[in-house]
Amino acid sequence: MASETPQNGAASETASPVVSFVAFKPQLFVEAPKANDAVVFYKNAFAAEEVSRSLNAKRKADQELPLVLSAELKIAGASFLVADAVDDSAKLVKSGGNGVVFCLESENIEAAIAKAVSAGAVAEGEVAECEGACGGGRVGKVTDPYGYVWQFCTPAKKAVGDVEA
Amino acid sequence: MASETPQNGAASETASPVVSFVAFKPQLFVEAPKANDAVVFYKNAFAAEEVSRSLNAKRKADQELPLVLSAELKIAGASFLVADAVDDSAKLVKSGGNGVVFCLESENIEAAIAKAVSAGAVAEGEVAECEGACGGGRVGKVTDPYGYVWQFCTPAKKAVGDVEA
Repeated sequence: MASETPQNGAASETASPVVSFVAFKPQLFVEAPKANDAVVFYKNAFAAEEVSRSLNAKRKADQELPLVLSAELKIAGASFLVADAVDDSAKLVKSGGNGVVFCLESENIEAAIAKAVSAGAVAEGEVAECEGACGGGRVGKVTDPYGYVWQFCTPAKKAVGDVEA
Repeated sequence: MASETPQNGAASETASPVVSFVAFKPQLFVEAPKANDAVVFYKNAFAAEEVSRSLNAKRKADQELPLVLSAELKIAGASFLVADAVDDSAKLVKSGGNGVVFCLESENIEAAIAKAVSAGAVAEGEVAECEGACGGGRVGKVTDPYGYVWQFCTPAKKAVGDVEA
């Protein structure tokens, strides 16, 4: 009930900065390298429209197709992301849980995480630069009290290509 | 590749009727009866706005609060649903998988399911009247080739209350 009320603590951190989100997008991880197939399926099955796609530049062998870091699709005006599961997300998908993460785009990731944690979420790891995920930029994660993972990231850049190198 | 091409079969079913969706909403199931707590959490943590809520009229004992069939929340203009997990969804949540179902609202559920199945999805059960889920009306489900469950339902009614008794 008091989650909006700043506590009188020793730290002089900003009291409850306003956090706003510019997008909410479920991200569906699929066993790598099936994300491309999944995108084709969602187009055929649900007439999803592909908005953008970012690929992982690294691949294990030259003949392999690059993995899909994130493909953004739209149905009925709502966006969702499809991604090849690697690392942690691969464990989630392989364990039979489904690999859905909810992405929230915000200009102020630290404040968004702090607010979620004060409401009862558990922060997972540190905020880090994370190429491609959710449109790229800085990314942080929390798990909510009901087991769902929420990923905060800086807003997706419009497709202008990579500015650096 | 031929998923859009009607096959010459014996049945004279309509060839690939146009299926359109009016909404896409992830539905997050939580262990009953925690959906109300989850709604409060999403409001506190992410400033989600509650749009509507439908309750299960049945309860096990008079002193129990009714379960949440579906509460619709919005973040950044995107909708998602929170529901108490009962029956099949309870198994999903308890098994440690996360209980996300993707709801697609359409006026033509049968055609939507037929199209999804022709693209490779597997239909789950029959289309049935299903009070409250996704806003109510008729509901059918498919599982896609990547393990995700998609629920088709008739579009959510505007909150006018029950017309019939």
